[in-house]
Amino acid sequence: MTQAPPPDDQQWMRHALALAAQGKGRVEPNPMVGCVIVRDHVALAEGFHQKFGGPHAEREALSALPAGCDPAGATWYVTLEPCCHTGKTPPCSDAVIAARPRRVVVAAVDPFPEVAGRGIAQIRAAGIEVEVGVCEAEANRLNAPFIKRIRQRQPWVIAKWAMTLDGKIATHCGNSQWISGEASRRRVHQVRGQVDAIVTGIGSVLADDPTLTARPPGPRTAARIVMDDRAQVPLDSTLIKTQSLAGLHVMVGAAAPQDRIDALRNTGCGVIVNASGTRTGGVEQLMAWCHDQGMTNILLEAGAGVLASFFEVDAIDEYQIFIAPKLVGGSTAPGPLGGVGLSQIAQSPSLEPLQVETIEGDLLVTTRRVR
Amino acid sequence: MTQAPPPDDQQWMRHALALAAQGKGRVEPNPMVGCVIVRDHVALAEGFHQKFGGPHAEREALSALPAGCDPAGATWYVTLEPCCHTGKTPPCSDAVIAARPRRVVVAAVDPFPEVAGRGIAQIRAAGIEVEVGVCEAEANRLNAPFIKRIRQRQPWVIAKWAMTLDGKIATHCGNSQWISGEASRRRVHQVRGQVDAIVTGIGSVLADDPTLTARPPGPRTAARIVMDDRAQVPLDSTLIKTQSLAGLHVMVGAAAPQDRIDALRNTGCGVIVNASGTRTGGVEQLMAWCHDQGMTNILLEAGAGVLASFFEVDAIDEYQIFIAPKLVGGSTAPGPLGGVGLSQIAQSPSLEPLQVETIEGDLLVTTRRVR
Ligand SMILES: NC(=O)c1ccc[n+]([C@@H]2O[C@H](COP(=O)([O-])OP(=O)(O)OC[C@H]3O[C@@H](n4cnc5c(N)ncnc54)[C@H](OP(=O)(O)O)[C@@H]3O)[C@@H](O)[C@H]2O)c1
Ligand SMILES: NC(=O)c1ccc[n+]([C@@H]2O[C@H](COP(=O)([O-])OP(=O)(O)OC[C@H]3O[C@@H](n4cnc5c(N)ncnc54)[C@H](OP(=O)(O)O)[C@@H]3O)[C@@H](O)[C@H]2O)c1
Repeated sequence: MTQAPPPDDQQWMRHALALAAQGKGRVEPNPMVGCVIVRDHVALAEGFHQKFGGPHAEREALSALPAGCDPAGATWYVTLEPCCHTGKTPPCSDAVIAARPRRVVVAAVDPFPEVAGRGIAQIRAAGIEVEVGVCEAEANRLNAPFIKRIRQRQPWVIAKWAMTLDGKIATHCGNSQWISGEASRRRVHQVRGQVDAIVTGIGSVLADDPTLTARPPGPRTAARIVMDDRAQVPLDSTLIKTQSLAGLHVMVGAAAPQDRIDALRNTGCGVIVNASGTRTGGVEQLMAWCHDQGMTNILLEAGAGVLASFFEVDAIDEYQIFIAPKLVGGSTAPGPLGGVGLSQIAQSPSLEPLQVETIEGDLLVTTRRVR
Repeated sequence: MTQAPPPDDQQWMRHALALAAQGKGRVEPNPMVGCVIVRDHVALAEGFHQKFGGPHAEREALSALPAGCDPAGATWYVTLEPCCHTGKTPPCSDAVIAARPRRVVVAAVDPFPEVAGRGIAQIRAAGIEVEVGVCEAEANRLNAPFIKRIRQRQPWVIAKWAMTLDGKIATHCGNSQWISGEASRRRVHQVRGQVDAIVTGIGSVLADDPTLTARPPGPRTAARIVMDDRAQVPLDSTLIKTQSLAGLHVMVGAAAPQDRIDALRNTGCGVIVNASGTRTGGVEQLMAWCHDQGMTNILLEAGAGVLASFFEVDAIDEYQIFIAPKLVGGSTAPGPLGGVGLSQIAQSPSLEPLQVETIEGDLLVTTRRVR
């Protein structure tokens, strides 16, 4: 019997990326990172960054080594350049060097200015071969929200909506419960439990009185944010009444009645005043505010008004669109993106190839904006 | 070496159904039928109904027998009950009996009142074992348009539209060229070449000046029909100018100006007057008219107005929806189904499970109304 051919660099790196992805929702605002230590075509140990403040992937892998196993001469697969600065944990580059690998394979350079290639340089300076760029596109895709946070100082914006097969997110009467099926809604709850904030509009609050919490809870508890020019969020709404479960912030217009603002504040919720006086200005301000709060991912679960404002300033990075096998029609029934809209089809933003999944009877179409 | 296990009845019948499907667009208003003659687990011959007026599948299979081959004792797989009446061709039941099969397996009974079980009865009366119902659902699905024509005396209605990922069939300015890609449009041309009529509305004619012919041509040449209350089809429109390529009929309201009607008639096109005075009445009348013309399949390639009228009377049997990776937004940009629409999501008609195919960058979602 001959041995199976050894998995190549790409295969090991894909495995490391799959490990990294398990940190989703747990590690932010840190990046997701995975690490596999391989010798003679066998994984000696593996690990991933499991939660914010916890050990980095490289140290997780080291502690997973079997007792007495010296990893000297191994090849390390790391999805992100090892850090070289002392943050919440000591630098990983030191730990890697101390383990005397023969070779370190890195998927992507850390965009974080305090690292940005210096981790790699340190390892090379210790005489260890370092290869960079294996599965780089996949790695950058996985950490796109982290990269955006570092480079653009803005959160990654995911727009989610459920529509009928004829593109409606509600009937002409405003009825929208339920367009998508239970399994799709469970999926949405999973995403809610991984993001930092869920943004909606007063239209949706008044129509649906949503809770916007993850049920069951996920690794993160998203703050809930309502775009509400006139500070109309009802004081007896579910959002107001469930502030012990998750934070609530209302972005109001500068002209919102002061007594309404005070009433909201008295319930304990945060009030952000849109200083710009425009809807799109409000979006920009909210994005900056979210960044300042340390947020990495925000999820839009809103109606056509709020979704359109984000769309108009090209702020949406990712789309998660549930399409149900239903038809309702109606020329005034809202589609997902309201506002004026583009005048020519050719002006559409470019999107990545559509990914489709069937979730019970619904389709889930996901894509990202090509930037 | 042992022999491969013999394909079972279902496998042979599926093969016969695949043969039958090759007649699509060629045999209507007849049903699609396929036939395989099998002995000792080997197909002696096969055939399908290739074109209207031509030999039936059973006779095609018989003429495909190798010279000198006597099919006595064989098992016949026929997707539709053999006919027992003399139409354009002599009865197939006689030909089957004369070939002395051991057994005849039939997928579905012929809904045609002049057959409806009598073909089967004749073969049984000749002492031949007949089994009915193998792959019956698939067979009835394949010939659903034929069955509807016979039972409901109405054509099968296919609604096709191309929409953006946010459910728009045009921008707020009416621009819709092109939402779907070239490969999707080629697919639409294939369907055009298989149906009996293509129905559009005056809105689409004025916005897009379409030709509505199959390019390249398919097995059938569909008539073009315009729903046009006020007889507004421009005399210099492409539809009027291309009547040598395919017939043109305009359904006008009873109040349409007589001079416009006369002008249309003078170009050679047919004029149908909507006697009902309502849009949905016009749809019912058009369906009856199409049936009287011997039509089996009609394709709606229209805007939100005409599609909504057919939707409102629940006349749509099949949906072919192209979804392009584009977003345009706009609360007044039309979705596929206009009109008032349903007020509750729960009132949506039930649809069969969505089938999705990727055509270059677009999705093609197909489904049928569950009746
Ligand atoms: N199917 C789904 O996935 C889904 C999800 C959510 C909601 N819905 C449905 O959508 C409908 C509600 O739609 P909608 O458009 O009214 O709701 P919306 O987008 O939730 O709220 C829109 C409102 O938000 C306020 N707003 C404040 N700042 C804004 C800004 N920067 N940009 C845009 N809007 C801002 C505006 O209120 P002012 O007019 O006070 O300025 C605007 O009218 C309901 O029928 C709901 O059921 C469906
Ligand atoms: N993306 C796609 O797949 C696609 C396909 C086709 C068209 N389009 C776009 O759709 C837009 C046109 O939409 P539309 O709604 O105006 O076009 P339409 O559905 O083609 O035409 C609607 C018009 O048809 C007339 N009509 C006559 N009898 C009717 C009946 N029984 N039911 C309904 N209407 C009847 C009405 O005219 P009167 O007002 O005179 O009564 C009505 O305004 C254009 O922008 C076009 O580009 C897109």
